[in-house]
Amino acid sequence: MTDCLVADRDIEFLLFDWLRIDRDGHVDRDTCRAVLGLATNVARDLFLPHYRASDVIEPRWEDGQVKLLPEIVHALREYAKLGLCGLGFPEDLGGMNLPQTVGMACHAILSSANISATGYTMLTAANARLLLECASREQIAHFALPLIEGRWFGTMCLSEPQAGSGLGDIRCRAIAQDADELGRRYLLSGTKMWISAGEHEITENIVHLVLAKVPRADGTLPPGTKGISLFIVPKILPGGDRNDIAVAGLNHKMGYRATVNCLLNFGEQGGALGWLVGEEGDGLRQMFKMMNESRIAVGTGAAALAIRSHRHAVQYAHERIQGRVPGQDGGEPVAIIRHPDIRRMLLQQKSYAEGALALCLYCASLSDEDSAEAGILLGLLTPVTKSWPSEFGLVVNDTAIQVHGGYGYTRDFPVEQLWRDNRLNPIHEGTTGIQAIDLLERKILKAEPRELALLEQRIRLAVARSELAEASYLLAVLDRSKEVIALMAQRPALARLQDATQFLRAFGHMIVGWMWLELAASAAGQADPLFREGKILAARYFCDFELPQAMGWLDSIARGNDLIVRTPEAIF
Amino acid sequence: MTDCLVADRDIEFLLFDWLRIDRDGHVDRDTCRAVLGLATNVARDLFLPHYRASDVIEPRWEDGQVKLLPEIVHALREYAKLGLCGLGFPEDLGGMNLPQTVGMACHAILSSANISATGYTMLTAANARLLLECASREQIAHFALPLIEGRWFGTMCLSEPQAGSGLGDIRCRAIAQDADELGRRYLLSGTKMWISAGEHEITENIVHLVLAKVPRADGTLPPGTKGISLFIVPKILPGGDRNDIAVAGLNHKMGYRATVNCLLNFGEQGGALGWLVGEEGDGLRQMFKMMNESRIAVGTGAAALAIRSHRHAVQYAHERIQGRVPGQDGGEPVAIIRHPDIRRMLLQQKSYAEGALALCLYCASLSDEDSAEAGILLGLLTPVTKSWPSEFGLVVNDTAIQVHGGYGYTRDFPVEQLWRDNRLNPIHEGTTGIQAIDLLERKILKAEPRELALLEQRIRLAVARSELAEASYLLAVLDRSKEVIALMAQRPALARLQDATQFLRAFGHMIVGWMWLELAASAAGQADPLFREGKILAARYFCDFELPQAMGWLDSIARGNDLIVRTPEAIF
Repeated sequence: MTDCLVADRDIEFLLFDWLRIDRDGHVDRDTCRAVLGLATNVARDLFLPHYRASDVIEPRWEDGQVKLLPEIVHALREYAKLGLCGLGFPEDLGGMNLPQTVGMACHAILSSANISATGYTMLTAANARLLLECASREQIAHFALPLIEGRWFGTMCLSEPQAGSGLGDIRCRAIAQDADELGRRYLLSGTKMWISAGEHEITENIVHLVLAKVPRADGTLPPGTKGISLFIVPKILPGGDRNDIAVAGLNHKMGYRATVNCLLNFGEQGGALGWLVGEEGDGLRQMFKMMNESRIAVGTGAAALAIRSHRHAVQYAHERIQGRVPGQDGGEPVAIIRHPDIRRMLLQQKSYAEGALALCLYCASLSDEDSAEAGILLGLLTPVTKSWPSEFGLVVNDTAIQVHGGYGYTRDFPVEQLWRDNRLNPIHEGTTGIQAIDLLERKILKAEPRELALLEQRIRLAVARSELAEASYLLAVLDRSKEVIALMAQRPALARLQDATQFLRAFGHMIVGWMWLELAASAAGQADPLFREGKILAARYFCDFELPQAMGWLDSIARGNDLIVRTPEAIF
Repeated sequence: MTDCLVADRDIEFLLFDWLRIDRDGHVDRDTCRAVLGLATNVARDLFLPHYRASDVIEPRWEDGQVKLLPEIVHALREYAKLGLCGLGFPEDLGGMNLPQTVGMACHAILSSANISATGYTMLTAANARLLLECASREQIAHFALPLIEGRWFGTMCLSEPQAGSGLGDIRCRAIAQDADELGRRYLLSGTKMWISAGEHEITENIVHLVLAKVPRADGTLPPGTKGISLFIVPKILPGGDRNDIAVAGLNHKMGYRATVNCLLNFGEQGGALGWLVGEEGDGLRQMFKMMNESRIAVGTGAAALAIRSHRHAVQYAHERIQGRVPGQDGGEPVAIIRHPDIRRMLLQQKSYAEGALALCLYCASLSDEDSAEAGILLGLLTPVTKSWPSEFGLVVNDTAIQVHGGYGYTRDFPVEQLWRDNRLNPIHEGTTGIQAIDLLERKILKAEPRELALLEQRIRLAVARSELAEASYLLAVLDRSKEVIALMAQRPALARLQDATQFLRAFGHMIVGWMWLELAASAAGQADPLFREGKILAARYFCDFELPQAMGWLDSIARGNDLIVRTPEAIF
């Protein structure tokens, strides 16, 4: 408890007691445990010690190089040496062949120690997985294997300064050249913004996966997202020469600073050499494979920061002596955990942080399952898993500052940095607003009836099985959600979209309420009465204190007032 | 609009059209306007330019001195030279004799430029006002006049490292010595924590108002808050010698950095000389006079930061081109203000930020009124005015980051600093949890029936007069609040206190809903249709989109589950 990281104990409960990832015999529990233990050691010994230093000493651009804090470079090289980059990859490619769920659990542990140091590894794994799914055998051998081995790291290059989330408007151009054994070669030129891990000296090479457009015969770029293609653009070319990629600047962030974030210019000297992945025009579809995994990873990181903040707050609340409670007859001041308002914050934190992590690992377990049902649920839950932990995890970071009082506002305690680090998560890999559109427009309103019925069935089953009196409130939220979905489906798209984020929040609360009923049921069999009681109390708290709030959000949507989209822009 | 500060236009609407502070002829509108204009110039020319620099270059302790950014020193000296420290004080004491409401409006304007630079002036004014109310004529002449003239600045020294909000447990000792023309003299020893403006070279002297206890005959300190006395402890003694006050350290905060914050040791060399204010044991009551004013000032600062963040977000949303909206047939990307989710955030921001400022100035106007009714309302509203702008203003700062996307997360834009600066406001001058206890236990449950009836009457009147269809929802919230108050009154104190903060939030939403109905009604007479429409739309938004959320919070309390206080501490 003293290091406040995501604890083995909690991970084991989630993976083995609740999700039972080893239920079909394909997964060896001892191997998983060994890897989780390794991740914990790496987190504690290599990632945590420079948590503050990596915030104070930012990456800087000096003598034509990105200079990182040496401890970050050391930690990531050790991580790679231990083979952890290959954790979720097949053994014949040099990986450990472990489930995604275990990989995501390791990501949680490491993120709780220093989330921005994990930025490099998360991108590298997602990059390699995309190549395995979409690239040619030669491309995999040349580019993906070094990523899995951890000799090279990867990036994803989507955004451009003039087009953030609007990828259809990217202007990066790719001009076809010739072909070699690695595929069709293009010369790329354009500027990419917000490139995490875009330049560094940790590894000998960096594999950029770049979205660009191939001009039409008249030289213009094809409009919209259908004209987007995906290219592999390495920092160092196969012959050993540097590719035509220049760092145009580093972004100076409010947190998350161990991950260097760059503005990259491709093709300043005539063109950066890149190899097409798959076919022209297929880039966005391919990139989304990487983004879905990344979105679960972002949620997991957010959940991990929430858990660490919660643990710091608990520790402080046990230690800090101040004030007295009603009913106490004089006597000495008490630990602040005795104050009702502090308890309220701690219980809310627990319900948010542990509920968020459960949701993320549940989603990871769905991606390990090879069934149609798992695919349906994963699609529905991905926008929630990206955004709910990011939004409500941040509430945990915020109340952790509050529990610490003035001390929490100083840089002598880590809770302020945890807030700043987590604040990135509602933004990158698709903002909360983008996730809300994805959930409502793509995942719910375009779903087949059986898809939503599947989710409903799971939730009803959890309520039916629950022994908690408070569980029935979840059914009320479920019914109200269905009514609100039906109402929204009748409204014009613009008017509907004004409420999409509020709906995402309410829907997320419903999903996390369901997670809590599952966790409470699983915890019932735990030997440790405090562990068991903790899960049950958090579940009861969530139903009775959080779900009414979600009902309020649904009610506001149900009122059907479309004044937000009718508001003239000029009034602002 | 380009500087994004609190605008003259908005202040004039609030002060003259809504609150009609000049309605009885005692206040001269032109004088008020001149002073507000002066404050705007000072804010823009002297406070705003070093907003970022005062964050980057923190106060530091060097060669036995606190070194501040020179621009901060210059700005505050100019502020003092212009006579602005005396804004709300009688002319015969060298002041301008303007209403508190005008002073608070100036505080809003200056806070929107650089809130932590206003920390010095806010404390100085509150310090002087306390002395005028509680100190002797000689003490006023010697200590308060230089504060009003701006030659000296003031502080309040309450907290100690072992006793934050628990003032009954302070250990600072005051040993009676003798008396001189300034009153009874004591030697003080002890450590005071979180002393804003505790040491600097801006002014030639600093007047510390220090809470301490006079030991009993047996040498022990009297227990509880009744044993607290108040002392004037100047940095420089009347003879010109330095008093026995040492800086033990500076606190390094996550924001609000222009205000130096100190750990001060009193009496390291035998005792700091202090003069008793009034009688022994009367210290907390006296200090509360200062704290109530400070609490409204904290709310006002929070509202000002929210307004500035909102204006930056609006500006960015108008300028930033990205994506397309449903129903748009191809064509060029649009300004992001066209996106429903961005509008939702902007309208919520407007309703929070402008509603918060209205509440603060309403409270300031109550403190200018000399009536029993005003006193009752002021007492009820002070905890809301301290906490609601602090909590919901922070939401505005947060969504302003979100509107800016990745750019908002960088230090190239001011919105991240505005969040960090505002994060102090739910903590200092009594945390939100403390305000919640004050509201529920002291202000509501101990109120006479006619006091709550007065508030209810005002709210019902505003609804009755409103032309907005959405206004009726406020009555539903009012009725539900009354039910919840009745329920809470029946519960044991501990169980009731677990829900105090949630109740404060809901009650605050109700109060701000009332403010919005008033603002919308006042705006109906405005000539500028966009200004008028903006107020009306924000009022309608608040009723239909925000009040249902408050209903959800009330519903969660009404469920009456006391599991938070029943939760065993060991589960965490």
